[in-house]
Amino acid sequence: MDFTEILGYSAGAVTSLTFLPQVIKTWKEGSAKDISLMMFIIAATNEVMWIGYGILKNDWVIILTNVIVLIMSVTMIILKLRYK
Amino acid sequence: MDFTEILGYSAGAVTSLTFLPQVIKTWKEGSAKDISLMMFIIAATNEVMWIGYGILKNDWVIILTNVIVLIMSVTMIILKLRYK
Repeated sequence: MDFTEILGYSAGAVTSLTFLPQVIKTWKEGSAKDISLMMFIIAATNEVMWIGYGILKNDWVIILTNVIVLIMSVTMIILKLRYK
Repeated sequence: MDFTEILGYSAGAVTSLTFLPQVIKTWKEGSAKDISLMMFIIAATNEVMWIGYGILKNDWVIILTNVIVLIMSVTMIILKLRYK
């Protein structure tokens, strides 16, 4: 595995964790007034597109990364609707 | 261009717009209490990784998408620090 590949896999791993601090903060504080519902609706729709692309390319890194981000986006949509 | 490529480019275009509704909402409302600073620090760091990967792969779709998301992430960090 060369440096480019290592950087790509590392970037993908970090991507899958991006929404985690927001999920934890919103869950703990029970407040989501300042959160954009539209952002997470776009994100969730986008993850479905990326998962479709990953399936067509048979690329498990893309599939797995985006399944994790999709779960977090849907969690944020639920939290936003609960705490709005 | 086949369906897989069209789906990939479309997904990239949507990705670049994901943070826009959050930037607009925070800018308009002047409130960022519920926003996770850590999320946007991770996102900005991650975009730099993806831009590096795009440069090494000479992939302008990856570079351009992530430059746009980096600008929005840095904007959110500035807004969060101003309105916290």
